[in-house]
Amino acid sequence: MEKKNYNPEFFAEALNEAKKGYAEGGIPIGSVVVYNNKIIGRGHNRRVQDKSPILHAEIDALRDAGRQTTAVYAECTLYTTLSPCAMCSGAILLYKIPRVVIGENRTFMGSEELLKSEGVEITLLDDRECFNLMQKFIAENPHLWSEDIGE
Amino acid sequence: MEKKNYNPEFFAEALNEAKKGYAEGGIPIGSVVVYNNKIIGRGHNRRVQDKSPILHAEIDALRDAGRQTTAVYAECTLYTTLSPCAMCSGAILLYKIPRVVIGENRTFMGSEELLKSEGVEITLLDDRECFNLMQKFIAENPHLWSEDIGE
Repeated sequence: MEKKNYNPEFFAEALNEAKKGYAEGGIPIGSVVVYNNKIIGRGHNRRVQDKSPILHAEIDALRDAGRQTTAVYAECTLYTTLSPCAMCSGAILLYKIPRVVIGENRTFMGSEELLKSEGVEITLLDDRECFNLMQKFIAENPHLWSEDIGE
Repeated sequence: MEKKNYNPEFFAEALNEAKKGYAEGGIPIGSVVVYNNKIIGRGHNRRVQDKSPILHAEIDALRDAGRQTTAVYAECTLYTTLSPCAMCSGAILLYKIPRVVIGENRTFMGSEELLKSEGVEITLLDDRECFNLMQKFIAENPHLWSEDIGE
């Protein structure tokens, strides 16, 4: 477990996004994009809120960050409360974001192996609060969760 | 080159979306999602129009299709005018869309190998009109194109 480049304040902001999502009745996954020690994009899963199959937390945060140059993406760290799925991992690879900090992957194991194989540095926190929030949500909304991961 | 499951009318609609994007000053890539022999989602790249780094054509078409069940995705074919990048291929894998029809991959080779390795059926058309439209756009807007593929 590599914890270099991990800033607890930024992770707390990703978790805040997840909680915001939960409070809205949505799937509690949050993400922030950090550049130059500042958050340039933030978001949370909006499947329920926006009836959107594509606004996973990471995609929402990248959308919020807006159009950036490769030079910016090359210095970004993406924080996410849950292991990124194939789509979100693909977005990380598309923009060559070099570092990803992940809250937990016990609820769902995304495409971490693919990210690692492409040289992305993964920091896994195994954070209990992220895990408990997801478990609570899934117990309350099993179908929404299945839908979100295409199952 | 596998052309089973390829319907020229649906491909023409994906190409129409690409042309619509071009007419708007955007990157001319289009996509449609077909279920049960009907288009349920359509879209085109909106980087320029919506200042969005995540609305590639395929993502825009999946967004337009809205929230669908796995049973629906399992019967869908996604048409796209250009070989799908890592993000869009990831979205195809996330929702387990079994068939993808691709206009061309000479301008850009996306994650077709990854899709094939996961059992997705790829139909490559090597369509000259798609290719020419992209080449024209790239000659006119090289920087926009580089930005769109994270280069």
